[in-house]
Amino acid sequence: MTAAEETWPGLRFPDEEYAERNRRFRSALAAAELDAVVLSDDRVTWWLTGFGDVAPIGSAARPRILVLPAGSEPAFFVHRSTLRCVVEMSAVPDVRGHAALGAAPVAELSDFLAERDCRRVGFELAGELRPAMAAGDIAALAERVEEARDGSPVVWSVRMVKSKAEVERIRAACQVTTRAYARGLPSLRPGMTERRAAAILKSALADEGADAGWCWVASGRGEFDRIDGVVRERALEAGDLVFVDMGANVGGYWADFSRACVLGRATPSMRRLQELVAEVTDHGVRAVVPGTTAGEVARAVGDAMAERGLEFSSRAGRYGHGLGLSVTEPPNIWVDDGTVIETGMVLTIEPGTWTEEGMFHCEQDVLVTDAGPEVLSLAPVELTEV
Amino acid sequence: MTAAEETWPGLRFPDEEYAERNRRFRSALAAAELDAVVLSDDRVTWWLTGFGDVAPIGSAARPRILVLPAGSEPAFFVHRSTLRCVVEMSAVPDVRGHAALGAAPVAELSDFLAERDCRRVGFELAGELRPAMAAGDIAALAERVEEARDGSPVVWSVRMVKSKAEVERIRAACQVTTRAYARGLPSLRPGMTERRAAAILKSALADEGADAGWCWVASGRGEFDRIDGVVRERALEAGDLVFVDMGANVGGYWADFSRACVLGRATPSMRRLQELVAEVTDHGVRAVVPGTTAGEVARAVGDAMAERGLEFSSRAGRYGHGLGLSVTEPPNIWVDDGTVIETGMVLTIEPGTWTEEGMFHCEQDVLVTDAGPEVLSLAPVELTEV
Repeated sequence: MTAAEETWPGLRFPDEEYAERNRRFRSALAAAELDAVVLSDDRVTWWLTGFGDVAPIGSAARPRILVLPAGSEPAFFVHRSTLRCVVEMSAVPDVRGHAALGAAPVAELSDFLAERDCRRVGFELAGELRPAMAAGDIAALAERVEEARDGSPVVWSVRMVKSKAEVERIRAACQVTTRAYARGLPSLRPGMTERRAAAILKSALADEGADAGWCWVASGRGEFDRIDGVVRERALEAGDLVFVDMGANVGGYWADFSRACVLGRATPSMRRLQELVAEVTDHGVRAVVPGTTAGEVARAVGDAMAERGLEFSSRAGRYGHGLGLSVTEPPNIWVDDGTVIETGMVLTIEPGTWTEEGMFHCEQDVLVTDAGPEVLSLAPVELTEV
Repeated sequence: MTAAEETWPGLRFPDEEYAERNRRFRSALAAAELDAVVLSDDRVTWWLTGFGDVAPIGSAARPRILVLPAGSEPAFFVHRSTLRCVVEMSAVPDVRGHAALGAAPVAELSDFLAERDCRRVGFELAGELRPAMAAGDIAALAERVEEARDGSPVVWSVRMVKSKAEVERIRAACQVTTRAYARGLPSLRPGMTERRAAAILKSALADEGADAGWCWVASGRGEFDRIDGVVRERALEAGDLVFVDMGANVGGYWADFSRACVLGRATPSMRRLQELVAEVTDHGVRAVVPGTTAGEVARAVGDAMAERGLEFSSRAGRYGHGLGLSVTEPPNIWVDDGTVIETGMVLTIEPGTWTEEGMFHCEQDVLVTDAGPEVLSLAPVELTEV
């Protein structure tokens, strides 16, 4: 075990893991006919260097930039005040300190690309990435290279397929989340607010071992088209279906699945709808096999919804998405996404419908394997009565 | 009280607060000779619309974009699945749903700017902002306007000066953090790891009422040049100075101040160094008066360091920074920052030095008032012996 692994157990992977990621990344660069890529999204730099933690973004005052040439060793540009820490934790040995505060060292980056003769350079221009480099700095650097292109397809072609070690963290995050549902849902009561319910469930995630956690609670009748809603002060009422979507982070990797409980007895129609949505979800899960596309999975889910007379009511624009270092990442499980499903991808499947009785949606996290899909989100999908 | 305030107490400000922010923002746009600004950093859109929560970034799959013209009403572009929630919470009434997933509706944004005759348009190109719009989408939209400029100076000219209501949240965050120090530091023990110590302190933040919290712990001897370090598995030892930098979030606003404890008795030299650094910090605090500049404050701190024979060892590139919706935001308290200090700004002052005995640094959060600087971070600066 390396010193870095001993110092950051549970965060830092073995050096060979980063070597393999960099090898795969370089092959993808070569295939895309790019000489290099400039990366600063904190999830991406953590994934490739090993330096970072579970927070989704780092300090805006000190952006970190990794330049990864297809044909030579990468260099990691960080603020000089952070040099010692980065060197200790990073699997990329060439770490260079600079003095720019709240900005990227554009001239130094440009010189590095020129020294390495990188003419066709990819940048984080799309693909749901959140570069730490300011948009103006990206544009200024892009102007100094012969050909600037969007590097996000290369990032995702590699990041979408998880290693065994990454899968183990997502599996652990799902296990923590499953235990937190078992611990938290039975303690919800009428009169409690959604905000209090969310606090209880987040506390359950922490108690079960999450390094971080998120939780969204939506309750009430006929009020469920609330995608991206912020948890409210609304008091839960007897008879309410309380919909919960949450996930633990373990070692940087997320779970993301929803369950629901009823404060009292579930009505027969509530049970029936939950069953139907679970069936459709399972249909989608079984469609996730290597060689198919995200679009084909979406069509299978849509057909299963229609056969059961269910309307896809959330209009969320998709039936699921990729999962890993971000709670939501490419691909999108939707008809226009042609991403080919590969072994090692982890995807969520989450068709939903709502009625006057509540939101019916039981998201699953699924690992694609050669032997078929494996559901990682093992909490029971039946409505819990509390 | 509006329905939105009742539904999200502690998060949503009164409508007049947003009206006043928008009014100030429009004046700043006019002064900068900009016709409009396109904003998507989730802290910025939350601040101007009231829609959002305390997480630093929102879903990358569904970026939200606010277009704020200098001479007419703003419009808020969000994914259609989130429309209902955004309309409920947003103080900006013109909310427009679109179907783009993982991308901005560039054509619709461009049409809107053309309809409103906005030719000189600001974008989030610099200034430590983290736009939710992809860099490629910003570039594509910028190409469609007559004159694209960096809008970040306008953002900060308004955001740096906090309203009374914003100051109350920062004050509350500092009070929660002060109580969490009092609760957490005495429970640290030799043998505990830094990671366990950080977990205890984060738990204390939550118990004291934080909506979110962060914590960084650095212990050990002669190992303190660890700015931006990730909390380690290192076991605390008897006699160690344990340096802690942390902050609560209350209603979206952060505290950020450091304190330290000694596991056993502090040596006379430890006490002396902590006193000297506290004196220098206090010198900086007293320099924070309206009309001076961030650079002049930095020079005052540097002179006070030199008079006491202290070296500014962290090489962090600054003696402090702005504080608010982000843990670190402009201005930088450094010699090359010419920002004029104004009443209503909240700044941190944090000179530091390290020796073989540990990191000596006791950051303060300071409100600028007409009557002089007010320290909000009231935890004792003396070394706590535990």
